[in-house]
Order: sequence, then C-alpha cells, then structure tokens
Amino acid sequence: MSHPPARPTRRADAEQNVAKILDAAVACLSRDAGASVSDIARAAGVGRVTLYGHFPSREALVEAALTRALAEGEAVLGNLDLTGDPRDALEALITSSWLLVAQWTAVLEAAQEALPSGRVQELHAKPAQRVDDLIRRGQAEGAFRADLPAEWLTSVLHHVIHGAAIDVAKGRLDGADAARFIAKTILAAYAEPGS
Amino acid sequence: MSHPPARPTRRADAEQNVAKILDAAVACLSRDAGASVSDIARAAGVGRVTLYGHFPSREALVEAALTRALAEGEAVLGNLDLTGDPRDALEALITSSWLLVAQWTAVLEAAQEALPSGRVQELHAKPAQRVDDLIRRGQAEGAFRADLPAEWLTSVLHHVIHGAAIDVAKGRLDGADAARFIAKTILAAYAEPGS
Repeated sequence: MSHPPARPTRRADAEQNVAKILDAAVACLSRDAGASVSDIARAAGVGRVTLYGHFPSREALVEAALTRALAEGEAVLGNLDLTGDPRDALEALITSSWLLVAQWTAVLEAAQEALPSGRVQELHAKPAQRVDDLIRRGQAEGAFRADLPAEWLTSVLHHVIHGAAIDVAKGRLDGADAARFIAKTILAAYAEPGS
Repeated sequence: MSHPPARPTRRADAEQNVAKILDAAVACLSRDAGASVSDIARAAGVGRVTLYGHFPSREALVEAALTRALAEGEAVLGNLDLTGDPRDALEALITSSWLLVAQWTAVLEAAQEALPSGRVQELHAKPAQRVDDLIRRGQAEGAFRADLPAEWLTSVLHHVIHGAAIDVAKGRLDGADAARFIAKTILAAYAEPGS
C-alpha cells in the first residue's frame, strides 16, 4: 500500500470529529451556557487534545456552535413565504424567529459572554437582512411607518426578541406568551402614526 | 491622648478613600468598560491594597460604580413631574432616561460583563418601578393599551433603550437621533390598538 489512500480516511475522521464536536457543543451549550470545553469533549466522545486540534479555544468553539445554530435557523427562515401582506409576513417571521431564538437562547448567551462585543450581531447579518428587506418593502407599500429608518426598525425587533428570550430565561415572561406579545408590540411600533 | 478619638479620623479617611475610589471607578469605566482595578486605583490616587481593602474584587467595584451611577440617575428621574398626560410623561421619562443610559453606557457594559447574569436588572428595580407605575396609570386612564401586561411593556422599554445604547456604541445609530426614535417607537408600541 502506498501512502496517499490514508489521507482521505484521516480527513474523513477529522470531519466526523468536527461534526461530533459541533453537535455536542450545540447540545451542551443549549442546556448550559457555561458548559466547559471538557464537558463538550466528553459529550462528543473525543479527547480534549483532539477538540483543541480543531477549535483552539472555547471562544472558537462557541462561535462555531452559534454559526451552526444560525445555519439551522436559516434553513427554517429561508423557507418562509414572505411575499404577501407585509404585516402578515412580519408576524410569520416573528413567530418562526422566536422559536429559533427560544431554542438557542443558551447558545446565544454563551456567545454573548465568550465572543468579542459586536461579533454576535455580525453573525446575525443574514437574518437581519431578511427583516430589513421586509421592512423596506412594507415601508414602500405603506404598510409600515416611513418616519423612522428601516435600520432602526430592524434593530428594535432584534432588541425586543432577544430581550424577551432573557425575560423568559429569568422567569419574568411566560415563554408561551412571548411570540404573541412580541408580534403585537412590533406591529404597533411599525404602524404608520395615525393609521 | 487616649485611643478612641483616633477612630473617627480613621473612619473619615476610609470614607474619603471610598468616595475617591467610586468617583474614579465611574469616571474610568465611563471612558472604558474594560478599565482594570489598577487603572481605577491610579486614577483615585490610592494603592491597590487600599482599594482591595474596600472592594475585594473588580466585580464588587463595578457593582458599586453602577449603584453610584443609578443613584445619580435617581436624583434626576425622581425630580420629573410625571403626573400629567401619561403620553407626555412617558416622553419626558424616555428623554431623561436616555441621557442617563447614554452617559453610563460603558459603566453598564462593564457591569453586564462583570456581574452575574440578572444582577444589572435587579439593580434597576427603582427606575423599572417608576416606568411600571406610569404604564399602569396610563392603562387605567386608557392612554396605553391594556391588552398586554404592564410588566411586558416595561420590559420592552428597557430592551429598546439599552439596545439603542449598544447601537450607538457600535456606530449603528446616531446618538442625536436616539431619544426621538425611542420615544416614537415606544409611544406607538404602547398605543391602544386601533386608537
């Protein structure tokens, strides 16, 4: 046997390890935002040295876990039909976004603690763009107020959804009420004044 | 001379040191949320040992700085006349609160990083109560929507104001627009649907 055939196997092993580590990272961090690298290595069934070979720090691992969670979220949000009445589309987008944020609250919390300030919002560029596009269309069609910039309205939705997730985590808000409260609040906040 | 008279002096020295340390902590953390205990000791003109004698950890010092900032805020907010039209009162409260939050953003950021999750919101109990009282009065008088609980409406204002402070810090929002944007958004969000 010559050497070359061994490489794909080693690469396949490495890819399998990365997948196991990421699955374990998302699962562990979803249960406990403070999960350690050792906890995650144990759950993945790999050694710490192997884990550090792929993710040189807890920060790198948390960022990869958030990126994975956001990619799963994109698969859901990307399938929504947002072409109808902007108000209905916004309500559908809020309902789906809330389910994702609620599912990944602890991963997000871990990321907010472990990543440099601003990085979490950078990684949210795609979902933020989707909201921004919908708001601009709604403004153009007269469904949403145009006296405030779309960037600000997008930002308000981000703050209210993520704030609600913290409220639920702290026991200040019933998770079953959250999507309805958020939608009612945001639709009113976005309405053309006097409409 | 007998011993007792020395005690008030030592106590006065200690009180003066605490005041100097807290002034320096608020000043340093306002400029840089990452200011270290050494930075603060230097700015206060006291040694690290003296500082640690009063504040055993950076966490304790940051909490004391936030408590001081909130007390100064209370002195401003406590003087507002909030007895008139609930909408006007809310706008006045938002404008003053925004100025305080904008002034103390870095102190708040330091607190959010250094204090256990939830502690910052606990320390906000007094300003949160003031908003909550105003919202309940507005709901009772029909000025604000009553289909959403007052706790939620209070929470929304908190999330939007603090989110806006982060937006300004990250350069996503012009600080000169913030109070106006927040007030327009919140007044619309709080309005009775269909009013």
